[in-house]
Amino acid sequence: MRFLDLILKKRDGESLSPEEISFIIQEYNQGSIPDYQMSSLLMAIFFQGLNNRETSAFTAALAESGEVLDFASLGKIVADKHSSGGVGDKVTIILAPLVAAAGVPVAKISGRGLGFTGGTIDKLESIPGFSANLTVREFSQLVRDNDLAIMAQTDSITPAEGKLYALRDVTGTVENISLIAASIMSKKIAAGAGAILLDVKTGRGAFMHSKEEAFHLSETMVRIGKEMGRKVVSVVTDMSQPLGFAVGNALEIKEAMAVLKGEGPQDVEQLCLFLGGIMLALAGKVRNPEDGQKELARLLKNGVALEKFKQMIASQGGNLEYLDNTELLPKASCIELVKAPKSGYLKESDALRVGRVAVSLGAGRSVKGEAIDPGVGVLLTHKVGDHVDEGEILASLQGNNEEILSASVKELSNAFLIVDEKIEPLPMIHGVVPPFPS
Amino acid sequence: MRFLDLILKKRDGESLSPEEISFIIQEYNQGSIPDYQMSSLLMAIFFQGLNNRETSAFTAALAESGEVLDFASLGKIVADKHSSGGVGDKVTIILAPLVAAAGVPVAKISGRGLGFTGGTIDKLESIPGFSANLTVREFSQLVRDNDLAIMAQTDSITPAEGKLYALRDVTGTVENISLIAASIMSKKIAAGAGAILLDVKTGRGAFMHSKEEAFHLSETMVRIGKEMGRKVVSVVTDMSQPLGFAVGNALEIKEAMAVLKGEGPQDVEQLCLFLGGIMLALAGKVRNPEDGQKELARLLKNGVALEKFKQMIASQGGNLEYLDNTELLPKASCIELVKAPKSGYLKESDALRVGRVAVSLGAGRSVKGEAIDPGVGVLLTHKVGDHVDEGEILASLQGNNEEILSASVKELSNAFLIVDEKIEPLPMIHGVVPPFPS
Repeated sequence: MRFLDLILKKRDGESLSPEEISFIIQEYNQGSIPDYQMSSLLMAIFFQGLNNRETSAFTAALAESGEVLDFASLGKIVADKHSSGGVGDKVTIILAPLVAAAGVPVAKISGRGLGFTGGTIDKLESIPGFSANLTVREFSQLVRDNDLAIMAQTDSITPAEGKLYALRDVTGTVENISLIAASIMSKKIAAGAGAILLDVKTGRGAFMHSKEEAFHLSETMVRIGKEMGRKVVSVVTDMSQPLGFAVGNALEIKEAMAVLKGEGPQDVEQLCLFLGGIMLALAGKVRNPEDGQKELARLLKNGVALEKFKQMIASQGGNLEYLDNTELLPKASCIELVKAPKSGYLKESDALRVGRVAVSLGAGRSVKGEAIDPGVGVLLTHKVGDHVDEGEILASLQGNNEEILSASVKELSNAFLIVDEKIEPLPMIHGVVPPFPS
Repeated sequence: MRFLDLILKKRDGESLSPEEISFIIQEYNQGSIPDYQMSSLLMAIFFQGLNNRETSAFTAALAESGEVLDFASLGKIVADKHSSGGVGDKVTIILAPLVAAAGVPVAKISGRGLGFTGGTIDKLESIPGFSANLTVREFSQLVRDNDLAIMAQTDSITPAEGKLYALRDVTGTVENISLIAASIMSKKIAAGAGAILLDVKTGRGAFMHSKEEAFHLSETMVRIGKEMGRKVVSVVTDMSQPLGFAVGNALEIKEAMAVLKGEGPQDVEQLCLFLGGIMLALAGKVRNPEDGQKELARLLKNGVALEKFKQMIASQGGNLEYLDNTELLPKASCIELVKAPKSGYLKESDALRVGRVAVSLGAGRSVKGEAIDPGVGVLLTHKVGDHVDEGEILASLQGNNEEILSASVKELSNAFLIVDEKIEPLPMIHGVVPPFPS
């Protein structure tokens, strides 16, 4: 097999066989195919696409490029959850212990944040002592012992995916549904869960700007998962405004704690219950998602979910004092406020702008490997549809650099749009793939 | 300017500004842009194309990446000629001295052959002592002194084109009319000629398989040349059967000598006169191509063109004894014959198959830098449309390796198709761009 011939084949609109795709990924992973040929193939894929068979083969080849976890010996279906990334998305931090509290093991491998969306690992690491740098062995053991562990993505799992994504990132070949689906699903397949819940976000603060794209990605991932013998449901959720009120690492831990105590923002709690209900149903724990939601609501109320969360944090080295008194968590030294310029209804609370402001304050990374500041971020006060009075606080910016902070006030004030006419709250769930009953 | 943004711009169908294109070529030439980003851009260009403005800017940027020759001080328009490459194409060897004999200086920079088409330099180097490895200074001086020189492509002229072509060659991004046109024209522009004749071949033995593509490439190159202040005419010529009867380096030198003595195959002589007539007209030496043809026919007949050729060979170190007695030129040791399996009319004499057989015998290169065997090749006996008798010789294969030679007989016999019905000779000229009168 000559790699150039495979480039030409794809470029000219033919499809690649599973053997050819396996060859491509294996050889690339071993360093036998130069980046300049791979990027050329990736751009050809961008234009010609991958059909279903190719996309599945691509996913399988990426999954098999490293260690593949297997929880079969547990005798229970292990659940996993993936979010395509959003602003203020602390769902995993709540959902993972919540589902585990119901007796469904959750084995979650997470990446670090990059760009305007935060990363779950970064958020959890704002709890002093907590570490997600587990070995696969430690991770598996924790899942066995506690039904719950969160591990940072390592090079031993899907290494080809990591290499390939780094190349796509600098060659303009990220934005292809098949490649995105294969990239996400290969990591989920390798992580060993039998029940996978995907949260595909859409809107200004998401990577999928249109609902159409989000549904297309969902259908592609669900199909791949099915072909690989996994139970997969994808939920398309809204990301035009930030989720909850807190954006920033320690700020989001505090908000997650509030939700686990039954005191959190309604939108976050509802989303967690909705997604968790599906996870319980997928894992066969309940007959349907509605029953799952009821069970999870009970576990939130009776404090079992919170205890599960604390157990996970403690098991992974976190100091529980910071959870018992969240005021001890890292905090910013300066605060600036954004106030409503007029009375009316909040029509826009632009997740992308809020996310960018949070990054500029130091809550996220512009480039890989950058240090982040756990204490900084943005606290919002209203959701779209709320009525606000002139002069009322819309957001507080929390930073450690006064110059950046004051420059960010203007940018953040552009995130909000207040209008005279009444505005309906935004829907949170756009749809479920496959639609219930599945 | 971020290179990634330029990839995305082109990928998403926007056009690049001349400044952006100049940046791309300069940075790539300096090694500041990695191959993997460049190949990704090239594949995006393959799919999105380059508009006229972009193609011209691309050409200019490539031309300016190295030394640019200027013959203005000669006080005469210097002519150049380019062929897109064909099987048995020895036209430059005849045409360059022929046009120079008419008093129009010819400054020709040539590449070496690769694949099934031969290279002019390789053919000339079968004359012992001859060298085309001139410096730009030596080259210019010879053009000044003799009105004629042929130099091998060097890294000092259009180095970015050389780097880029090497990358396109291994990334499936060769076959794009804009990139092909920019590549060819950049070398012509840098070589300094004011009058440029392009011979774009079409048919099985050419890179442009369809006439449509050949005309498209011609129009693109003529437009680029015009924008850069050069007089350019492109002639689309047939390459479904080999040109003349000889395919192979020394064999083609012998045939070229025969044409220069007025004893060569009709098709080669006619093509040389046709192309040369246009060159004389472009250079302002005659009023129209027809007058040019008449003048060149005279210079062939009276031996002036042959003397010019010998002067060039001698000036570049070639031993004239080998021209005075061409039997001294390198020769193959073994011969195999292909005979007509039946009587009838020759309908096909497949240039691609003949070219490939010649390469397998050692007359050409499969990979860059490979040594070639100057003595080997194929000698044909008939043109399409000729009547042949059963058992009559159609071709002789001349090689130095008996095994390869006998394996090639079958392949070469597949190049010919003899039918019962009368067949018309193939047209040699498919069209001229811009059409006469220009």
